[in-house]
Amino acid sequence: MEVEERYKKIIEIVEQKLTCSAHNLDHVFRVYNLCLLLAKYEKDVDLEILIPSALLHDIARVEESQDKTGKIDHAVLGSIMAEDILRKLEYEEEKIEKIKHCIVAHRFRTGNEPNSIEAKILFDADKLDVIGASGIARTFMLAGQFGQRLIDNYSINEYMNSNTVENGRLKDVSKHTPFIEYEVKFKKIPNKLYTEKAKEIGKERLKFMDEYFNRLKSEINGIK
Amino acid sequence: MEVEERYKKIIEIVEQKLTCSAHNLDHVFRVYNLCLLLAKYEKDVDLEILIPSALLHDIARVEESQDKTGKIDHAVLGSIMAEDILRKLEYEEEKIEKIKHCIVAHRFRTGNEPNSIEAKILFDADKLDVIGASGIARTFMLAGQFGQRLIDNYSINEYMNSNTVENGRLKDVSKHTPFIEYEVKFKKIPNKLYTEKAKEIGKERLKFMDEYFNRLKSEINGIK
Repeated sequence: MEVEERYKKIIEIVEQKLTCSAHNLDHVFRVYNLCLLLAKYEKDVDLEILIPSALLHDIARVEESQDKTGKIDHAVLGSIMAEDILRKLEYEEEKIEKIKHCIVAHRFRTGNEPNSIEAKILFDADKLDVIGASGIARTFMLAGQFGQRLIDNYSINEYMNSNTVENGRLKDVSKHTPFIEYEVKFKKIPNKLYTEKAKEIGKERLKFMDEYFNRLKSEINGIK
Repeated sequence: MEVEERYKKIIEIVEQKLTCSAHNLDHVFRVYNLCLLLAKYEKDVDLEILIPSALLHDIARVEESQDKTGKIDHAVLGSIMAEDILRKLEYEEEKIEKIKHCIVAHRFRTGNEPNSIEAKILFDADKLDVIGASGIARTFMLAGQFGQRLIDNYSINEYMNSNTVENGRLKDVSKHTPFIEYEVKFKKIPNKLYTEKAKEIGKERLKFMDEYFNRLKSEINGIK
């Protein structure tokens, strides 16, 4: 089977799988585009590993979000589902293993650190999509979905304390605000990245995010 | 009754009324802050008219959104509800009329153009809140609520055509995207404003919005 033909079939499978979760599908294509960008700045990147990994990395997203036990990790399950898909598309065993590694290691929580350049690129691209203008869009879309408010007066300390009190219980996402997400989560991302280009893009995206939240704060308080 | 005491009571009423619709409440306070900012740049602004108008302008928002006939206009109903509230707070008839005018004229669709400086300021402040960093936050929160996608490839022409086909029927909000809202709605706002300061702020907010959407487009396509 030609490589282009394989990609076409993978895209069909991903689109079908993530239709009920269109946001994830859009995220997959943004991550795919970012992977191609990052790959240009690294040596010896095997696109035949990177491309299927990027397309398939969130294939188990729907399973994870529908799982009520909280035990399904989409990175772990995704690598298993990918194996099956790739074998049907007659991928060589060696390639399947490499792609599986990229998928299982694209998330911190699995405990699997990326150890190939393709896995590092996928990890970085996935994290970069959380910040910058895309990150702003995503965080406010989630805020709208969870009924969060557009305020900045719920301080980080208050949030941390309320979490300690609720020790062990599920956090109340309606009390999150994008300001908090930005302070406690997004700001740390550039330091977690592997490739130099991703770090550079990450810093730039964070700078833009900083400008955005400063402006938003001024607007909320009637200064701008 | 002291004027500060009256404001306190008005805020209590507004907070109670809009609790189930926290976003509107936050919007009211942003508009209030903006009104105070704009008032500094105009002559002979009567804050005793402007402040209650700003606080009460969306008092009928819940009624409008719960109304299934589509006949309730929150600007019209709001001015009637405000009359009742203000009378109980012993406002003079002359002031009540001026505040009612601000409320009924804060929206285009009523056909009532603002004819006092206070009404013009409220109109401008309300429109400014739709653009800039606040506008970005609001439009993506709505996008999340309505399950819209984060894509830019649904062109304005396609959107317009699909609307023509659906002639007379409710538009499918899930097919809107913030990119479309920006192109067909937000860009026109600065030209609709009355006060000079609001026009200046509007242009600056739009410039920021422009930077934001350009960056988002680049990020989506893996360029930045």
